[in-house]
Amino acid sequence: MTADDRPLLVFDVNETISDMREMRRAFEEVGVPGELAATWFASILREGFALAVHGEAQPFAALGRAVARTLFAVHRPDREVEDAVVHVLDGVQRLPVHPDVPGGVTALADAGYRLTALTNGSEATAEGLLERGGIRQHFESVLSVEDAPCWKPASESYAWAGRIWGVPLQRAVMVAVHPWDLHGASRAGMRTVWIDRYGAPYPQYARAPDVRVSDLTRLAARLEGDGAALRD
Amino acid sequence: MTADDRPLLVFDVNETISDMREMRRAFEEVGVPGELAATWFASILREGFALAVHGEAQPFAALGRAVARTLFAVHRPDREVEDAVVHVLDGVQRLPVHPDVPGGVTALADAGYRLTALTNGSEATAEGLLERGGIRQHFESVLSVEDAPCWKPASESYAWAGRIWGVPLQRAVMVAVHPWDLHGASRAGMRTVWIDRYGAPYPQYARAPDVRVSDLTRLAARLEGDGAALRD
Repeated sequence: MTADDRPLLVFDVNETISDMREMRRAFEEVGVPGELAATWFASILREGFALAVHGEAQPFAALGRAVARTLFAVHRPDREVEDAVVHVLDGVQRLPVHPDVPGGVTALADAGYRLTALTNGSEATAEGLLERGGIRQHFESVLSVEDAPCWKPASESYAWAGRIWGVPLQRAVMVAVHPWDLHGASRAGMRTVWIDRYGAPYPQYARAPDVRVSDLTRLAARLEGDGAALRD
Repeated sequence: MTADDRPLLVFDVNETISDMREMRRAFEEVGVPGELAATWFASILREGFALAVHGEAQPFAALGRAVARTLFAVHRPDREVEDAVVHVLDGVQRLPVHPDVPGGVTALADAGYRLTALTNGSEATAEGLLERGGIRQHFESVLSVEDAPCWKPASESYAWAGRIWGVPLQRAVMVAVHPWDLHGASRAGMRTVWIDRYGAPYPQYARAPDVRVSDLTRLAARLEGDGAALRD
């Protein structure tokens, strides 16, 4: 496969690159159960997608604050609610990348793939994460839906990004841990890679991914061994 | 206010009528943290709304099973995953109504309001819940989006229900605990009542409710004292 055959690899950011499990600590530090972190993140997406149904959008952080306030009405933090909300949101800025990310991303870049990121979070948060992970230099761009007409998984979000990349979506591959993201990307014309770090089954209601691997290191190995997996 | 002035009161079901906190037990009974119940429910809605962005839909139970399988890949239950999935889904069929529901619903019916239910869950589940709560007789109908073109909060779901009720949406009032439901109902032309049992702040990105009360008993008292609150 020549360099020109290689598709653009588009990485989701939250949970695909960042290890959101570390958010547990931010919740525990304000005196509430760490398990709330998972509810909080799922609820942010729930709210964002509910708005997307109407073609509306809000910044990820605005939804993050609102959802935290709702959770803290039931699970009272050990400090003023607004202070706890700030503490939790700050936690997002300290998240690490998953252990497989630096090696996997570097191997893909070394193999000549063009890499980019497309996040429902803010551009600044994604940039900070990639910097902390030591991999920012491997991404030719970092895009946030905050500059798009709408959030993923709306087709317009991927189409908007494709125009900025200057690449037909048929030559772009969404790499994500979330089936809803891959389903939306596939509907928009992209090929898809599912990163399944925990061995979960893929839901039947989402379009099946073209490639399924357990982490980014294995994705790099897979594409080296079988570049045809993602060829046009 | 005469009977003809009275709007149709449309009740959401999950969490508005059912006490979803009891789902904690179903998760604990399969050996995983009870807090997963909240993550599970938020994730079902997240998945349902992601599909709604594309105009697609799946039954609530199908999403409930898929989300449970994903959660159980990380939090291993004390039995076969499929057995644990069944146990959790069965828990939905045993949920009680909130303590304020029987008295509040009965008072509203006694005051002459027409009551109906519109759920993103299944019709059978909603029927069973209302029966267990001893209030089924107060509802003239129980509708599920499984018979509609799409889930709430898509405008078409409320419009579809309005055609079945035979009532212009301007004369129907959505009663729910979820701001995303009230936002969608308002966009579809309905008036809205927010039930806020835990004293949470209402999110700024959702259309403000016309009435805000802490439970259904207080809604009945509020409408008796100030029927104009929901008059056309």
